[in-house]
Amino acid sequence: MSLPTHMHAAYVTAPGPAEAIRYGRIPVPVIGPTDVLVRVRLVAADPVDVFVRSGAYPTPMPSPFVIGRDLVGEVAAVGPGVAGFVQGQPVWCNSLGHAGRQGSFAEYAVVAADRLYPAPPDLDPADLVAAAHPAATAWLALFRHGRLRAGENVHVGGGAGNVGSAAVALAVAAGARVIATARPEDFSSVRALGAAEVLDYRDPDLPAGLRTATPDGYHVWVDTSGHGDLATGVGLLANGGRLVVMAGLHATPTLPLGPLYTRDASVTGFAISNASVTDLADAADGVVFLLRATPWRPRIADRLPLSLAAQAHRRLENGEVNGRLVLQSATDRIDQPIGGARYSSA
Amino acid sequence: MSLPTHMHAAYVTAPGPAEAIRYGRIPVPVIGPTDVLVRVRLVAADPVDVFVRSGAYPTPMPSPFVIGRDLVGEVAAVGPGVAGFVQGQPVWCNSLGHAGRQGSFAEYAVVAADRLYPAPPDLDPADLVAAAHPAATAWLALFRHGRLRAGENVHVGGGAGNVGSAAVALAVAAGARVIATARPEDFSSVRALGAAEVLDYRDPDLPAGLRTATPDGYHVWVDTSGHGDLATGVGLLANGGRLVVMAGLHATPTLPLGPLYTRDASVTGFAISNASVTDLADAADGVVFLLRATPWRPRIADRLPLSLAAQAHRRLENGEVNGRLVLQSATDRIDQPIGGARYSSA
Repeated sequence: MSLPTHMHAAYVTAPGPAEAIRYGRIPVPVIGPTDVLVRVRLVAADPVDVFVRSGAYPTPMPSPFVIGRDLVGEVAAVGPGVAGFVQGQPVWCNSLGHAGRQGSFAEYAVVAADRLYPAPPDLDPADLVAAAHPAATAWLALFRHGRLRAGENVHVGGGAGNVGSAAVALAVAAGARVIATARPEDFSSVRALGAAEVLDYRDPDLPAGLRTATPDGYHVWVDTSGHGDLATGVGLLANGGRLVVMAGLHATPTLPLGPLYTRDASVTGFAISNASVTDLADAADGVVFLLRATPWRPRIADRLPLSLAAQAHRRLENGEVNGRLVLQSATDRIDQPIGGARYSSA
Repeated sequence: MSLPTHMHAAYVTAPGPAEAIRYGRIPVPVIGPTDVLVRVRLVAADPVDVFVRSGAYPTPMPSPFVIGRDLVGEVAAVGPGVAGFVQGQPVWCNSLGHAGRQGSFAEYAVVAADRLYPAPPDLDPADLVAAAHPAATAWLALFRHGRLRAGENVHVGGGAGNVGSAAVALAVAAGARVIATARPEDFSSVRALGAAEVLDYRDPDLPAGLRTATPDGYHVWVDTSGHGDLATGVGLLANGGRLVVMAGLHATPTLPLGPLYTRDASVTGFAISNASVTDLADAADGVVFLLRATPWRPRIADRLPLSLAAQAHRRLENGEVNGRLVLQSATDRIDQPIGGARYSSA
């Protein structure tokens, strides 16, 4: 496989609005000794990509800076220190585009080998790239930060969302009893993921309903909304309960200390951007498990060419996307199965 | 050693005010197969005793209910299933008087063997009983809930208090760099415990001072005050920092979610009443370590006869006690060294 000198990419030269995203040709990057060059097939646009691009989430950013965190593709070249990856192998990653690393929204991307995972041939590549970020986030929330164990009671606020639905299915698969909230029109889909009960998050009697659903209290409370009603959550925790916060950049809710400390409870925040490569690799196994062993699938709201990256960011910022946006690299066809003959002999 | 049938005790018949505490004779309790009967020499009055007695901290309470959590004494009798304790052995305990267990403010007390610890003969018994509750609380805050490791930065709010001063000395001994707050008149005593810096907690520029003292942020933040200024604390945490809350029954401070979740930080509450016997035994080793290996000693504000238990509670409730109140059982003399000849041959 001979590599071109230049490639198409969606990039910015400095933090700014969605309109600052350019789509054009830049040099194909050079890999270091423990890196893999990946030929990108599909990427997905994450809300956190918008925060990085706008500067709301400050992170080291080279210029020009290729945007985007997630990709599915195949190995184009490996550094001399890389073991376990071979040219043509289907792979995926969900931790590019921050902390000084260039992003995934390009025809080629450099991925450190310990951030790259084999893409199982039985999984649909669009599902995999769409799952990569929300499912890994849900895994980290439940297991790394929530320390969920089988038999516990879990609340998932926003159980029909990208992260929330993944959290419902993962918690159910882990032996938890899950009480979720959603809009009534999403009740049946959340129940289909195994939630024991689904409550209307706009019901004014929601706190009472949540208490009735689990009188012994919740061991893990995951709220994906970022509205951050800590008082209700902390009041309904079991002894030793863990309330996991992963959103609400500017929210400042009140936290009642009495119900927190007298129950040995905690409020634990995390951002997937901080996850170690070890935790990310554990979460990556969780993503594959979720797609293989549960009925959960990511809701793909739309598929776009990579050239429309700016539009994707705008739609995310406008809050008009109900599901995931998957973008297709210019040099690939979205209907090409990963691990097919075209790549296995590359 | 022959046991009397009755004993003096300080008790209540139901939750109520300090004046409801009676001092009189009740039957000497009967031990179960894995219990130890302890002849009580000294007890200490804890703020949490007041919460239990008043009903503010609801917990199962037999009637009459002997108040008090801590004791130093010696073994008077052992159940047939008890190994490791012998009659006359000096012992201590700090988990009586809640969760259905009778308290320590009596001439004799039943202690489950796994809640009883040998009292080292080299330690002053008044220091030991006065240390039992605050030092164990500090140990649990730093190590069990704060997960402190050597080399980390620790903030102790209220570094001259009972729990706070123990936390300063324990954290220093564990290899942490400690920044504490105190009143100016207590600066030198807190520095003598090894604090790297002590700041005036009433200084309006305290947040800036705390930031200057540790620009990289605090890994563990312990506030013993219960005022619960979470916003300052969370804003000064390091990545992965743990803010530990152990007081503030009715406080409802605001918690900024952005600095919490973008730093993988947490707010962890705990009450020593919830501690497992394993954790309490670990903490008990910490109490002995603190008294042996550091310059910290509990500040004993006053010594009273057990008959003045009601006065002790009233003084605690009025906030007029600067240090610890130690009470002496009617049948013992406070100046009798533990492990002395009188008991070693009992």
